[in-house]
Amino acid sequence: MSVFDFFQKKKTAPVARERLQLLLAHERISPGSDLVSILREEILAVIAKHVEIEGDRLQIRIDRGENVSILEIDVEIPAKAARAA
Amino acid sequence: MSVFDFFQKKKTAPVARERLQLLLAHERISPGSDLVSILREEILAVIAKHVEIEGDRLQIRIDRGENVSILEIDVEIPAKAARAA
Repeated sequence: MSVFDFFQKKKTAPVARERLQLLLAHERISPGSDLVSILREEILAVIAKHVEIEGDRLQIRIDRGENVSILEIDVEIPAKAARAA
Repeated sequence: MSVFDFFQKKKTAPVARERLQLLLAHERISPGSDLVSILREEILAVIAKHVEIEGDRLQIRIDRGENVSILEIDVEIPAKAARAA
């Protein structure tokens, strides 16, 4: 399964919207460090600088496994906003 | 296949290093917008603020498909640097 399949398998946005999906995985040695939560706000701020984010079109999920934490951000972008990029 | 499998399938870093992997996919309508390249530098700058990046431990890949562009960043982090997070 290639990474394209991972992103394809999710319901693609209706034609009039583009979509931005981000996955961030931190494979830790020590349980303490919470890099994923630290990076979350700043990465969101970077994305928000370049695309129009509507509250109900944004999904954020954090999975904290024993050694791996994963941040998932999924944004549907109004097509006109994306074209400005 | 869950997203954990995707990240697990890659060779995990030797024990003394942590690892940060990022995937960013932009599903476009218009071929023109190059959001992934625009976000690449700024996301890297956010990561570099919080972890020590050694040149040879950083891998960056961009795949430009017809409708989907994917950015992949893979960073091995010296364990002591990650603990500061």
